[in-house]
Amino acid sequence: MSVSVFDHPWLGGLFGDPEMAAILAPERQMAHMLAFEAAWSRACGKAGLFDPARAEEAATAIAAARIDLADIAAGMAEDGVPVPRLVKQLKAIAPAEAVHKGATSQDVVDTALVLTLREASGLIAERLTTLDTALVSLEARFGDAPLMGRTRMQAATEITVRDRLLAWRLPIADHLMTLEQKRADVEKVQIGGASGDRKALGHKAGTVVAAVAEALDLAPTDKAWHTMRHGIAGYASFLSLITGSLGKFGQDVVLMAQQGLEEIAMSGGGGSSAMPHKQNPVAAELLVTLARFNATQVSAMHHALVHEQERSGTAWTLEWMVLPQMLMTTGRALAVAIDMSQRITRIGTVA
Amino acid sequence: MSVSVFDHPWLGGLFGDPEMAAILAPERQMAHMLAFEAAWSRACGKAGLFDPARAEEAATAIAAARIDLADIAAGMAEDGVPVPRLVKQLKAIAPAEAVHKGATSQDVVDTALVLTLREASGLIAERLTTLDTALVSLEARFGDAPLMGRTRMQAATEITVRDRLLAWRLPIADHLMTLEQKRADVEKVQIGGASGDRKALGHKAGTVVAAVAEALDLAPTDKAWHTMRHGIAGYASFLSLITGSLGKFGQDVVLMAQQGLEEIAMSGGGGSSAMPHKQNPVAAELLVTLARFNATQVSAMHHALVHEQERSGTAWTLEWMVLPQMLMTTGRALAVAIDMSQRITRIGTVA
Amino acid sequence: MSVSVFDHPWLGGLFGDPEMAAILAPERQMAHMLAFEAAWSRACGKAGLFDPARAEEAATAIAAARIDLADIAAGMAEDGVPVPRLVKQLKAIAPAEAVHKGATSQDVVDTALVLTLREASGLIAERLTTLDTALVSLEARFGDAPLMGRTRMQAATEITVRDRLLAWRLPIADHLMTLEQKRADVEKVQIGGASGDRKALGHKAGTVVAAVAEALDLAPTDKAWHTMRHGIAGYASFLSLITGSLGKFGQDVVLMAQQGLEEIAMSGGGGSSAMPHKQNPVAAELLVTLARFNATQVSAMHHALVHEQERSGTAWTLEWMVLPQMLMTTGRALAVAIDMSQRITRIGTVA
Amino acid sequence: MSVSVFDHPWLGGLFGDPEMAAILAPERQMAHMLAFEAAWSRACGKAGLFDPARAEEAATAIAAARIDLADIAAGMAEDGVPVPRLVKQLKAIAPAEAVHKGATSQDVVDTALVLTLREASGLIAERLTTLDTALVSLEARFGDAPLMGRTRMQAATEITVRDRLLAWRLPIADHLMTLEQKRADVEKVQIGGASGDRKALGHKAGTVVAAVAEALDLAPTDKAWHTMRHGIAGYASFLSLITGSLGKFGQDVVLMAQQGLEEIAMSGGGGSSAMPHKQNPVAAELLVTLARFNATQVSAMHHALVHEQERSGTAWTLEWMVLPQMLMTTGRALAVAIDMSQRITRIGTVA
Repeated sequence: MSVSVFDHPWLGGLFGDPEMAAILAPERQMAHMLAFEAAWSRACGKAGLFDPARAEEAATAIAAARIDLADIAAGMAEDGVPVPRLVKQLKAIAPAEAVHKGATSQDVVDTALVLTLREASGLIAERLTTLDTALVSLEARFGDAPLMGRTRMQAATEITVRDRLLAWRLPIADHLMTLEQKRADVEKVQIGGASGDRKALGHKAGTVVAAVAEALDLAPTDKAWHTMRHGIAGYASFLSLITGSLGKFGQDVVLMAQQGLEEIAMSGGGGSSAMPHKQNPVAAELLVTLARFNATQVSAMHHALVHEQERSGTAWTLEWMVLPQMLMTTGRALAVAIDMSQRITRIGTVA
Repeated sequence: MSVSVFDHPWLGGLFGDPEMAAILAPERQMAHMLAFEAAWSRACGKAGLFDPARAEEAATAIAAARIDLADIAAGMAEDGVPVPRLVKQLKAIAPAEAVHKGATSQDVVDTALVLTLREASGLIAERLTTLDTALVSLEARFGDAPLMGRTRMQAATEITVRDRLLAWRLPIADHLMTLEQKRADVEKVQIGGASGDRKALGHKAGTVVAAVAEALDLAPTDKAWHTMRHGIAGYASFLSLITGSLGKFGQDVVLMAQQGLEEIAMSGGGGSSAMPHKQNPVAAELLVTLARFNATQVSAMHHALVHEQERSGTAWTLEWMVLPQMLMTTGRALAVAIDMSQRITRIGTVA
Repeated sequence: MSVSVFDHPWLGGLFGDPEMAAILAPERQMAHMLAFEAAWSRACGKAGLFDPARAEEAATAIAAARIDLADIAAGMAEDGVPVPRLVKQLKAIAPAEAVHKGATSQDVVDTALVLTLREASGLIAERLTTLDTALVSLEARFGDAPLMGRTRMQAATEITVRDRLLAWRLPIADHLMTLEQKRADVEKVQIGGASGDRKALGHKAGTVVAAVAEALDLAPTDKAWHTMRHGIAGYASFLSLITGSLGKFGQDVVLMAQQGLEEIAMSGGGGSSAMPHKQNPVAAELLVTLARFNATQVSAMHHALVHEQERSGTAWTLEWMVLPQMLMTTGRALAVAIDMSQRITRIGTVA
Repeated sequence: MSVSVFDHPWLGGLFGDPEMAAILAPERQMAHMLAFEAAWSRACGKAGLFDPARAEEAATAIAAARIDLADIAAGMAEDGVPVPRLVKQLKAIAPAEAVHKGATSQDVVDTALVLTLREASGLIAERLTTLDTALVSLEARFGDAPLMGRTRMQAATEITVRDRLLAWRLPIADHLMTLEQKRADVEKVQIGGASGDRKALGHKAGTVVAAVAEALDLAPTDKAWHTMRHGIAGYASFLSLITGSLGKFGQDVVLMAQQGLEEIAMSGGGGSSAMPHKQNPVAAELLVTLARFNATQVSAMHHALVHEQERSGTAWTLEWMVLPQMLMTTGRALAVAIDMSQRITRIGTVA
């Protein structure tokens, strides 16, 4: 049983997000790594670097490979990366001369990461859209209702519910637009080889890169990007912008739900072991928590930009600890915000 | 399969720490919660708040309870805490009037946390001691050897290996001493009841608190501490001081292991998928990564000090996301540092 | 004398950036606030909300106003914002009925911030371009030279200097492109009035906003954005991406400059009080420091997204503590990187 | 004029703390550095490393030195530290052979830092005591009044004002006790010389260290601690625990001051440019902001633990950017909390 709140047998009931978890699942990550290796064999076959028949044979075997994960785990402690053992396993079931040659660990792991990010972006886009719709619907139902405007936590002048709602919805609309750019920033094949210079590919580098990119439906690249992490860190920053916007939404709802204000009503909610009658704004609070979690993690992703020389064991590894959690947090925050929006039964000052 | 690096099927080979994982395991957390509830029933029986026979009966049933975790998980999303559903389950198998009454969620969860921290502190103390011994042994073997002192990453004047080693070991010795104070800061029973004022216990509060504390071998308290999180945040800061000291150790080893310097040699090490002959200082790098991870997380624990009113849903929940990971990180860093120390076969300038 | 490293009488010699400091200077901030107030008076005059002649008179007086800063400072502790006292001073020298009416503190402070960001973006663009040129020049001079590729701090396979240089330069080129989008995200007039709903402007809101925007050469807005801080936080994240990329550059240079590697030579450099012969890679180290500083600060900017209701006293104020420092840090890092690039006299493995 | 909120001509009215600023003032830092250099000359005279008469002459001249700060600033960019130029200036006014010899930059800068921390600790202790008294007084006046207990931002059960007040005061009492330990952790002379091994002092090292320590009233040390920063990082963590506790106080007050709750009343407060009748809880909000600022900065201090080899240019420099700001923030938060406590005229549920 896991120490992580996202997988924890009971905390997972609060923090878990089965759809995002499926995208980030190790078996899915492994599938992406195998997809890269298969595409690599075929691309090198196409470029004439591998014998084409053997390459195709290798690709087919790789695609069907059953990986011994315990062996990969044992290799991690020695190698710091899963790829050496993975390649060894693949060479045992496929023509060794047509496997991985010319590629390196980052090529496999970072390209697999990008495939994960693509799926995560799809889910995020879908949820941003659903949330936008839910907030539009709230506006249609309650937008004209009066609400006390509050500045510095003090009653100011009366506004409408629409004014408050737009501060929740417009950032979502912005994020939906920005997502397209962020996707383009990261959905690029990573290919570098030993020291990242593609030297082993010689003048066939362009052919190989184009073929791998096409097979995986990613953008080709002129150069390996594995030491230039601003795309990844920028993507992570964007995740935290999303959860930050949702944190504002949650914080507002928590404040509106207070006794003495009662500016919002929701179906569902949370109980207390000591006071069973109490309705706690659990979902709204969680949005604040998730915002602060990502606001913390984003710092690590920026530290990881200091990536030494041709590959940093320290900075790269730090990303592995943080980025999947930021994705889980973002996915969960969006799901909670959607659910909460749909459970709102009234917004506005009680007459 | 888990998204967390600590449990991940292959990343766990690098980040996992089975002993610390056992301490943080959900089943162990649940055992601590049940230990609190059993102690609570008995203490209230002793104080005459519950019928003593029924209290004993309840305590016995609680201690033997088989908890339906899926039910607890379902309750988390509603309640934001596991306790309401847990109590409901316990009341179904024990005399309901002698279960949990007068206590509240924090009492259960925070006291259970403290029991976890106690076990974690024990493991940390043991490993700090082992590491200290390993470093003393290195000093005995290599302390007199010459080493180029390096300031601002430039060769400065010649020092001895002892000088460098002491900068690794003395902080460990300090941390071992500080740990005693940190243990005292947190190993305190948390009892407050509904709004944290122990009102439901009336003039029996002292008796109940003393009895629970004795049963769990924790310090009694005059007042609930659940809204005063500086003990917990101070403990977390201490964890990050440990990993920070180990990060300096790791960074030094990474630098010493460079070609052109070769000031250290180790058995074992890490391979590369592209360059099988290469020896990568995986353990040393990992120490830097773990230091930076905790240096990031510590920020969240300090944000969680802003704990509203009698219980913050947001700040408390943020700790759940972060503190277990800090413990895993600290445990793993200590294990790696010990192992690495024991694999060092030479330190000092090559003659 | 200041506690801040950017203004400090001697630390300023390392951290100071006179050009960015001029952009962030309080007198310049005040000029932007007065520019807003003057534009506001004229815009309301044009819209018929103020008497046009009085509005013009007010605008002229505001533009020429000499502000008593000590009075503003005294007001800060009471009001938490500079605007109430500022407006009081302006009303004393201009027709009171044509001053500030319909606007509020955020309108003044956030629009002034945006004017500051515009100037900062100009300087950043200029320096990114200069740095790009300097790195292109290094490539022309040294690009073909051999260099040992290093992965995980270990010698890997030989690459060329070009390969290393591109990892420094390409992110700069990307940042230069992204800057245009970031400018568009923030260079928007902030107008909301009391609770941010523009109610005081009635159906003249569009006219007023358009006129203020035109006067200040900013984009008009359909709605106040002062509670939706993702544009600002996104801009701050971008600053940290820049310094992170420069941190990688600095870290690489620090490592290359080590004895035993000597892969780079520079004119200038740093001395030591104990070892006057030593050349310390001060500039390169500083780039790493500045990267880690911004990587820390970016977290606060993301926390500030949790902006309560119609105005958060806490979140907004946190930005004031952090964002100017991030700008100074970015400015300084770019200046240092340019200078360092121009002082490089050799890159590549010594034959 | 400064970009820093602590010195800013008007923001300084909100963030400034003249007493802490005096402790951190550059002239005071310089006085500490000169105090070290004078003590060094005398100690080396006493130990026979310098000619005693010349040493005394040097110490007298150093104590009276007028330092050219612009020259030091110019040296910073070259050397990354102020000491080489400072020593050069001192040698020009004192017998050069009896100045600084055997010491190095860290010895001067870190010992001066410790002298600053000692003064800051004195101020912090004084303010913690004053705040404790102010809160005791509030308890005496309002402790018995009823107050609605609030958990998860929802009305729970009635408590007394005392219950809430103790959650504000008890941490202060704890911090006051912890401060003594934290002082002992840092108030230690730093002496290492060139590569930190005291080699230049030979068998006189003990004598020199003892004499410097005595002169500066600091604890002597067996070894240089400049690469072991856990004392400094632990002190910084402690500062953030203080501001975190005050942040909880502030957050509670902000919530209590809301319309619809009105559980607190204060004299003074904050105005609004648009709504002059409004009373904003500026001081309480500021406490939350300062808590979040320090909670962010503490992360950088922990990253700075990864201090390479015998001196890290990057990690050490990062501390300079952050620690003075944490001290200013802590000082200001304590001053604000004291002032706010003294302005409270009522706490408790309005009858």
